[in-house]
Amino acid sequence: MAAATEEQTAESVSALSTTVIGASGYTGGELLRLLSGHPNFEVAQATSREYANKTVGSVHPNLRGTGLRFSEPDDLDSVDVLFAATPHGVSMEHVDEFKESADTVVDLSADFRLETEAEYDEWYDGHVCPEYLDEAVYALPEIFREELPGAELIAAGGCNATATILGLYPLFDAGILSGSEQIVVDVKVGSSEGGASPSKASSHVERSGIVRPYAPTGHRHEAEIEAILDTSVSFTAHAVDMVRGASATSHVFPDSPVSKGDLWKAYRSCYEEEPFVRLVAGGSGVYRYPEPKAVAGTNNAEVGFELDPSNKRVVVFSAIDNLMKGSAGQAVHAANVALGFEETAGLEFQGLHPVGSP
Amino acid sequence: MAAATEEQTAESVSALSTTVIGASGYTGGELLRLLSGHPNFEVAQATSREYANKTVGSVHPNLRGTGLRFSEPDDLDSVDVLFAATPHGVSMEHVDEFKESADTVVDLSADFRLETEAEYDEWYDGHVCPEYLDEAVYALPEIFREELPGAELIAAGGCNATATILGLYPLFDAGILSGSEQIVVDVKVGSSEGGASPSKASSHVERSGIVRPYAPTGHRHEAEIEAILDTSVSFTAHAVDMVRGASATSHVFPDSPVSKGDLWKAYRSCYEEEPFVRLVAGGSGVYRYPEPKAVAGTNNAEVGFELDPSNKRVVVFSAIDNLMKGSAGQAVHAANVALGFEETAGLEFQGLHPVGSP
Amino acid sequence: MAAATEEQTAESVSALSTTVIGASGYTGGELLRLLSGHPNFEVAQATSREYANKTVGSVHPNLRGTGLRFSEPDDLDSVDVLFAATPHGVSMEHVDEFKESADTVVDLSADFRLETEAEYDEWYDGHVCPEYLDEAVYALPEIFREELPGAELIAAGGCNATATILGLYPLFDAGILSGSEQIVVDVKVGSSEGGASPSKASSHVERSGIVRPYAPTGHRHEAEIEAILDTSVSFTAHAVDMVRGASATSHVFPDSPVSKGDLWKAYRSCYEEEPFVRLVAGGSGVYRYPEPKAVAGTNNAEVGFELDPSNKRVVVFSAIDNLMKGSAGQAVHAANVALGFEETAGLEFQGLHPVGSP
Amino acid sequence: MAAATEEQTAESVSALSTTVIGASGYTGGELLRLLSGHPNFEVAQATSREYANKTVGSVHPNLRGTGLRFSEPDDLDSVDVLFAATPHGVSMEHVDEFKESADTVVDLSADFRLETEAEYDEWYDGHVCPEYLDEAVYALPEIFREELPGAELIAAGGCNATATILGLYPLFDAGILSGSEQIVVDVKVGSSEGGASPSKASSHVERSGIVRPYAPTGHRHEAEIEAILDTSVSFTAHAVDMVRGASATSHVFPDSPVSKGDLWKAYRSCYEEEPFVRLVAGGSGVYRYPEPKAVAGTNNAEVGFELDPSNKRVVVFSAIDNLMKGSAGQAVHAANVALGFEETAGLEFQGLHPVGSP
Repeated sequence: MAAATEEQTAESVSALSTTVIGASGYTGGELLRLLSGHPNFEVAQATSREYANKTVGSVHPNLRGTGLRFSEPDDLDSVDVLFAATPHGVSMEHVDEFKESADTVVDLSADFRLETEAEYDEWYDGHVCPEYLDEAVYALPEIFREELPGAELIAAGGCNATATILGLYPLFDAGILSGSEQIVVDVKVGSSEGGASPSKASSHVERSGIVRPYAPTGHRHEAEIEAILDTSVSFTAHAVDMVRGASATSHVFPDSPVSKGDLWKAYRSCYEEEPFVRLVAGGSGVYRYPEPKAVAGTNNAEVGFELDPSNKRVVVFSAIDNLMKGSAGQAVHAANVALGFEETAGLEFQGLHPVGSP
Repeated sequence: MAAATEEQTAESVSALSTTVIGASGYTGGELLRLLSGHPNFEVAQATSREYANKTVGSVHPNLRGTGLRFSEPDDLDSVDVLFAATPHGVSMEHVDEFKESADTVVDLSADFRLETEAEYDEWYDGHVCPEYLDEAVYALPEIFREELPGAELIAAGGCNATATILGLYPLFDAGILSGSEQIVVDVKVGSSEGGASPSKASSHVERSGIVRPYAPTGHRHEAEIEAILDTSVSFTAHAVDMVRGASATSHVFPDSPVSKGDLWKAYRSCYEEEPFVRLVAGGSGVYRYPEPKAVAGTNNAEVGFELDPSNKRVVVFSAIDNLMKGSAGQAVHAANVALGFEETAGLEFQGLHPVGSP
Repeated sequence: MAAATEEQTAESVSALSTTVIGASGYTGGELLRLLSGHPNFEVAQATSREYANKTVGSVHPNLRGTGLRFSEPDDLDSVDVLFAATPHGVSMEHVDEFKESADTVVDLSADFRLETEAEYDEWYDGHVCPEYLDEAVYALPEIFREELPGAELIAAGGCNATATILGLYPLFDAGILSGSEQIVVDVKVGSSEGGASPSKASSHVERSGIVRPYAPTGHRHEAEIEAILDTSVSFTAHAVDMVRGASATSHVFPDSPVSKGDLWKAYRSCYEEEPFVRLVAGGSGVYRYPEPKAVAGTNNAEVGFELDPSNKRVVVFSAIDNLMKGSAGQAVHAANVALGFEETAGLEFQGLHPVGSP
Repeated sequence: MAAATEEQTAESVSALSTTVIGASGYTGGELLRLLSGHPNFEVAQATSREYANKTVGSVHPNLRGTGLRFSEPDDLDSVDVLFAATPHGVSMEHVDEFKESADTVVDLSADFRLETEAEYDEWYDGHVCPEYLDEAVYALPEIFREELPGAELIAAGGCNATATILGLYPLFDAGILSGSEQIVVDVKVGSSEGGASPSKASSHVERSGIVRPYAPTGHRHEAEIEAILDTSVSFTAHAVDMVRGASATSHVFPDSPVSKGDLWKAYRSCYEEEPFVRLVAGGSGVYRYPEPKAVAGTNNAEVGFELDPSNKRVVVFSAIDNLMKGSAGQAVHAANVALGFEETAGLEFQGLHPVGSP
């Protein structure tokens, strides 16, 4: 990304080679963007069955200058790290192949996020290699930083799950919630969550300006949230008019009274040192609470809260870019931790103000 | 609105004369639009201090053909009906004047929505004529149809309150909720709720593409919801990228198990005969649940629900156009009922498909 | 649309029966909306091969209350008027069938807009029934009002052509332009122009927030403009972020000096009496020139201009709703004229202020 | 921006100190973002009268992590480089002060873009220090690369002018245009061009979804275009629904016939080696011509064209991010050239795909 200097040339010689599977999708494109600007990685292969032999720039216009071309996913190069950004169900069919071609595999689908076959079967349809479920490490460094170093199979979390977990985790960590309380999670997401395949519902005509319930109950990300926080949640997602972004509003009702000071303490204790989490709760200005617009294009998560004494409720807001902290950025962050690189390497972009719509 | 025919000319002679106070605002403009196409009303006066003597069309471009001009609000004509679409606090200062100039006063502000001075003081800042609080009838015909005929002071409900109340009312009416349960209401609203005064936060630059918590706790519409449903609610509102529209998602947890059949029965029983409420819950197509986009410009409310057995939760969705069913349309509907006109008179517009953003 | 009165019931008994072919598309939906609120028409049949037997409301949520269902297009009822809202090339295959089933056929495709087979072949691909080209009357009443009464085959104009023609016509009519001058037409259109079939380019993800040249040269609507105005134009279209709307900016360079007074005279002379054309050129307020946002949902065209003395240029702005004045509204207007009804019947909706995006 | 390494720490010690005047505006914020990630600059002072003593992050949420605070503009530090991002007319009042406090002054307003007092007076209102007009170098390195090294006063170009000039320049450079031809420039711009002061016309309510002519004739950027290209242009600007971005469509009519090959040759000859200009003209995929969406957040300009043989017209498309290549990015690029740094330093961000709205 930076202009070549002698030091950087030296660095790139020793950079780890990477393959991106499913590189024509939106998270695949983000991986290419991040890896091509990363001091410790270089992209060796970017696969896409649909666009094989076409330039990466013909699909991702921001990558026009990279000179990369898509290749068929059938012949994988031998690389150091492989990132798989395919639809759910594809990675588990190919995981042995992936592991053979790379020392470290980071999967961005839902295939390895849950820990047991039983959990998987409850929410998805039959796992073909459940033996890997236990091995895979969930990619969120804020919670699994200790387990990531040396991991050979990493599962990047779901975007809505990531936003929700980051919002609620400090309340569990501080004992403000124990897992038996009522938790309502109301999520608002952008259109890139639906992936790159066109449909009538995702057309500009039908999807502009909407507030559309798209998963009133039974959203699969509920499984991840419940597994990682060891609780039950009442989860509902709505599609709204943005392209990137997931915003989770969690309404929780602690059993014992809690003060604003308790809340600040809980959140600071978890996130004060985190490079990618910002506490945003009140203050002056336009951006007083977490907003997807404020983190678009970045790996940042914004987390904030408000206390509603009359209803004994804590309202927690968390906002991420679903393609970044909710997917590709989280994957690169986890890879950085797993491989001993600077945590923020390749993820320094601080976002834009203003931006039209995330 | 319709081309003049002999019958219609005859009708307009006998139409009731109306004044619209605050006619340059967004709800004022909607009132003018509705009244100028209404067979039983005719607009005698449209006041605006800021735009006095300018044409109505210079502010509301859709009304360019009407020939109306704004007048100063100081000299009120004697009319049959007066609609007041002013900011909170203005109507209570002028209500005697309003009542003197018109037989029927319909107020669109919050000044007369609550029943007692104590309630008002809890949520707002001191009422100057609390003696009218009890007299005023809340404008929602779906609940107060019996009390409206002959009413001389009518208070149109708040937009978010209207959406929420319409969603939850059947559950209370059917005894599925009693008032002691946990109720979380998560609302998404458009920018027209903020009124016509510009601010940095409401500029296109800063407000495009947002999911912005703007009333995490303590939203004043909570007062109306709680008063009318006789319950407590945990209410949070978010601003999203649309201009018109309020969408309320209410998460409720009945004490006793409830079936989908019970829910359909409850909602059908309340709304089957209602001219402006549509039950939208599932089915095929793009628009499977209530959406503001589907009701933009109309007086319709869409109400739907889903049952989440694993969490013993009912998720209720309700969507309205905040300027119509949430304000001006509700006001005209209530006036129709109060004065004995056809309920749907002037409110027949069925909306557009597609529309960019409501 | 209006509340039922005895007169209107009487009217509907004598309303003309209509068929809408291609009723699940966007212009088809608009036709259903307009005809179901029209005092002189009633919808007998609404065809859609894809959605046959489904309710009209499952596709067009604004029409949920109508009770209409789509039928297969193979068995056409015998009706008074048939509106065909199919993709280009379909109507000419079925026109004999259409004419057999209805006394008056109004076609909304491009199949009968041009006058000669040679013209058609230059811009499209071979006409199967060129014998009808001469018979068909172009639907714009502002220009062809005299030819419409009694017409049996009417061709609604293209949306971009309509906007452009309405903007330029008075300059030709007044002799300010003769046909030999340089005319540059730069058009901005919404996503509904692309129809209801999803594609990647028309997805919300890829189409939000764009200014995208989509027809740099050779746009087919150029043919209509040139034929009707008897001139040559340099035409380019851009897709922008709205759903409804076509805005044409025409830059013209009259051979002789022209004054603002000349321009006002030319435009007033053509449009002063027109029920659906508004002159908007300057003045105060936010909406000083024609804008699609100001006419969304209506059959209105806004036309305005500015004089640039230093470049000897007249800049003409014209804005319409592409689904209304640019298609379904124009079709109904033309049918009203053709059949001797009130010109504005069924087309009285005056639009919304504000509206999010047209 | 990059993770700190020993080399980079060493670099920052020797980085040039900079002041940003008017740092709370949109271009000021972009300057802070670019400079804080730039290896050769460090921000010493960020002034804002309105927000003095507040954190930069309270206005620009993307800069929350920087720790910077705004200071009053009255006491300027002595720095190496000063960037002034104030409204037109402010810089010329303070230029002596600016020059005293810094060796190099880069002004982003219109105050020093024109070469002579006469030109300035024709388009603006009286210059207070015309003696600097001749000294100032126009910031576009693609045209003035030779004049920038060592420049002490640099004037960043207007955004619309920049887009237009970059599109047309190769046609003049190759002799395809000589200056006597008809040139129509039709520009579409985002809301950030209007700056950060709220108004009714720029509110989200009134500005969403628009195609609004806002400078039908007489736009001041015309002056820059005409001065730099030595020609006359017919210029019109429209506001559309995006926040960042300027897209210029230039319709030109060369006196002699020109082929696509001639055009490619002209554009390649000028831009093949340019780090920030991309030729985008045809090809497959969604992004076939220049689009603001493809360059949002970057310093890239996309330039493309199409030939319309029937009208003897060349249509030139050019797209930039108005806050970047059209202002802050151009300023930093020019400073890089002026001071002998790597041209792309601090400007490597390659943009996002997808992004909601630029």
